[in-house]
Amino acid sequence: MNYPMIAQILGRMISVEAGLMLLPTAVCLIYGESPMPFLPVIALAAVAGGLLWRIKPKNKELYAREGFAIVALSWIVLSLIGAVPFVLSGDIPSYVDAVFETVSGFTTTGSTILRDVEALGRGTQFWRCFTHWVGGMGVLVFMMAVLPMSGEYSMHIMRAEMPGPVVGKLVPRARKTAAILYRIYVAMTLLETVLLLFGGMSLYDALLHSFGTAGTGGFSNQAASIGAYNSVYIEMVIAVFMALFGVNFNLYYFLLIGRPGELFKNKELLLYVGIIAFATLTMAANAAATVGSFTQSLRYSFFTVSSLITTTGFGTVDYNLWPEYSRLLVVIITFIGACAGSTGGGLKVSRIMILVKSANNEISRLLRPRSVRKVRLEGAPVEDSTVLCTQVFFFLYLTIVLLSALIISFDGFDFTTNFTAALTCVSNVGPGLSAVGPSGNFAAFSDLSKVVLTMNMLFGRLEIFPVLILFVPKLWKRA
Amino acid sequence: MNYPMIAQILGRMISVEAGLMLLPTAVCLIYGESPMPFLPVIALAAVAGGLLWRIKPKNKELYAREGFAIVALSWIVLSLIGAVPFVLSGDIPSYVDAVFETVSGFTTTGSTILRDVEALGRGTQFWRCFTHWVGGMGVLVFMMAVLPMSGEYSMHIMRAEMPGPVVGKLVPRARKTAAILYRIYVAMTLLETVLLLFGGMSLYDALLHSFGTAGTGGFSNQAASIGAYNSVYIEMVIAVFMALFGVNFNLYYFLLIGRPGELFKNKELLLYVGIIAFATLTMAANAAATVGSFTQSLRYSFFTVSSLITTTGFGTVDYNLWPEYSRLLVVIITFIGACAGSTGGGLKVSRIMILVKSANNEISRLLRPRSVRKVRLEGAPVEDSTVLCTQVFFFLYLTIVLLSALIISFDGFDFTTNFTAALTCVSNVGPGLSAVGPSGNFAAFSDLSKVVLTMNMLFGRLEIFPVLILFVPKLWKRA
Repeated sequence: MNYPMIAQILGRMISVEAGLMLLPTAVCLIYGESPMPFLPVIALAAVAGGLLWRIKPKNKELYAREGFAIVALSWIVLSLIGAVPFVLSGDIPSYVDAVFETVSGFTTTGSTILRDVEALGRGTQFWRCFTHWVGGMGVLVFMMAVLPMSGEYSMHIMRAEMPGPVVGKLVPRARKTAAILYRIYVAMTLLETVLLLFGGMSLYDALLHSFGTAGTGGFSNQAASIGAYNSVYIEMVIAVFMALFGVNFNLYYFLLIGRPGELFKNKELLLYVGIIAFATLTMAANAAATVGSFTQSLRYSFFTVSSLITTTGFGTVDYNLWPEYSRLLVVIITFIGACAGSTGGGLKVSRIMILVKSANNEISRLLRPRSVRKVRLEGAPVEDSTVLCTQVFFFLYLTIVLLSALIISFDGFDFTTNFTAALTCVSNVGPGLSAVGPSGNFAAFSDLSKVVLTMNMLFGRLEIFPVLILFVPKLWKRA
Repeated sequence: MNYPMIAQILGRMISVEAGLMLLPTAVCLIYGESPMPFLPVIALAAVAGGLLWRIKPKNKELYAREGFAIVALSWIVLSLIGAVPFVLSGDIPSYVDAVFETVSGFTTTGSTILRDVEALGRGTQFWRCFTHWVGGMGVLVFMMAVLPMSGEYSMHIMRAEMPGPVVGKLVPRARKTAAILYRIYVAMTLLETVLLLFGGMSLYDALLHSFGTAGTGGFSNQAASIGAYNSVYIEMVIAVFMALFGVNFNLYYFLLIGRPGELFKNKELLLYVGIIAFATLTMAANAAATVGSFTQSLRYSFFTVSSLITTTGFGTVDYNLWPEYSRLLVVIITFIGACAGSTGGGLKVSRIMILVKSANNEISRLLRPRSVRKVRLEGAPVEDSTVLCTQVFFFLYLTIVLLSALIISFDGFDFTTNFTAALTCVSNVGPGLSAVGPSGNFAAFSDLSKVVLTMNMLFGRLEIFPVLILFVPKLWKRA
């Protein structure tokens, strides 16, 4: 391990976070709140980050292992620092709770330990929702986009942070790719904010909910989430934008450079839209009697499906009270997740495609033992190592869900709560069923359970391996 | 597909089943019951089976595809025929219910649709429990052991029917291997029967419960299952024998030929015993307060863990009422299952080992991208194709659980019931949690759900691929 390089990059990260905290500080000042929860953290982070940044490593080489370690450590350090203002403001007195909430923010999970989300100050609420926006596209990708960095090793970092089984560069240089992605991200966030303003939302609320949509996070400053606005227009804007942020951003790049045909050729997008359509329609039919009418049910179902498959977690209705088919669909959609290369979490549609195709090939191989077929995705063969990695990912995903559910079961909640809490955290969705349903929260869990679920959120957002690797002693050996 | 050969082998199978039904017929006569539920089925099966058997195929070649098709079709046809006596006797008036019960028997699942299991006649009860014994070691393996068959193609059949990721022949000829396995199986069953007689059980009850233990099935003629005897001796005999029948039978062969060292070298056995010990102790501690004392809790926990990991499903206590940690452990153990090459179901301990080792290798590969490591099992490298097949198996396993849970959710049971019902059937355990817990049954499900769960049991027992292949149109093409 190249420790000096890791420390230097962590220093940059911490400095960037100090800079990002200026925004909620400004919000405090605008609304006449005290900026004191943020100022000491910014000062300390700037000093500590600056000192680390000044490290001049002799050896600038970074390999895959350093890429993973940097990503995992960055996310942990950022969260540990980002949690402090919640404690200082008194909004979240327990540091464990504050870290849970901050990790939930950065990982764009949206699970909350707050029993009264509306009691937060304007500044801390802004910071809470803003972490979604920062985490959505990736904090290190953000850093790459704004700070000059050597291009040689940035791909390792990008690969470790970007979701999905395969990461493609849009343009030869990683930094340029990061900048393009962020430009699209900013533009779409602004567009949504403007559309929400048209719906009668205040600028503050519109920004906060755009952050939550863009990062596919799900934090809201309203206890009733999007349901609080009781506006079909606002619901549809957010539902459509959630779905849009769940699409592979590379496709938007192709759209920008005048190749819209790529969209129609993209099988992952097709399946993603297909799953949304199928789930929305069957859920609407299933819940119609409970909701009152099929039209109302369609409205709520579309929002719910879009919110869950993109792993956002905004709510307009308590689907926990819906019939069992809808509730099971919720669990399955929570597993699936959004498209690779989007801000969404979960297994990702393309991973499901790889798994299904691999299963299909296996069945063919059993029928004709001598035939060898490659898994193909979007017209190109997928490397055997990628297929294997996807299979391992799937196994680890379920193992994490079951083992973490086992640990949190000591708190005495029912099976549905434990299973869906573990699942929704690792999938970065936010709400689950039963006690952690859309109208519930994670406040009643013990500190141990909160730490476990916090780990789950990091496992989910960083796609398991970077976090898991931290526990391998071999990683920490000096090169 | 070589249809004449398939028909001929199915004919043998049906004839063998006609022969097996002579046993419950004898039981009817001994206890002064009418043998009429069995006689017409035996007669028709003997005639139909005999006619098919007389087919003389020109081409006697069988490939892997025919092996799979024969196994899947045999199990389906056997169950469809074996269900008829339950309907004729009036014990199970609905044919769908009778097929569910028979498949549950042959697949050694032990899930029941009977609300009053003690109301059955002696003959049909015997048949119900005897199906466990027949299904445990495999019906086709049984046929191979007793009927002369060409050795060339029998390995294909054996491979498709025997559980586990790798099937090894004990001796060069498959038929000889089958005979050895069945001799061990018979001896162990008889030993258990004798030990149960010492505990004060009647011969009838002792035989029935030995069938259920040997096949790791779980059907009992008592509503309270093993709990009805309220005897620590009987519970311990059955708990230990369940655990023994969950061990790879190859190890008993090594023991017989004087190589006991193989047992201590076997990593799967070590892990299997380790899981049983860990689960028993932690469950006992967790449930102590509910049960009353740690000693009592240890007694019930050992029985429960042995019953579930071997996928038998006998019960002495309603663990559905235990604390949540125990209930989640029940779910996890239900996933894991017994050792490969045993009569138990589930994923199998050796598959878990392959999956964990494969994950471990993947993490090493991420740290040192150029290193290539093979998964090793019991000291030998595992073929890459076997690793891939195991990964695909795991994916399909979970997909079947979730999709079947989704379909049965229309019946309106809660999430825990739906999830564990789907899981317990595919794992061939028997009971689940909530409405399908140890004191519940599957009677209240709709016919559609029962058909889906019946499929799950077949998927589980035949390890998915043979059944799945039946749905591939390519299979049915003439060669």
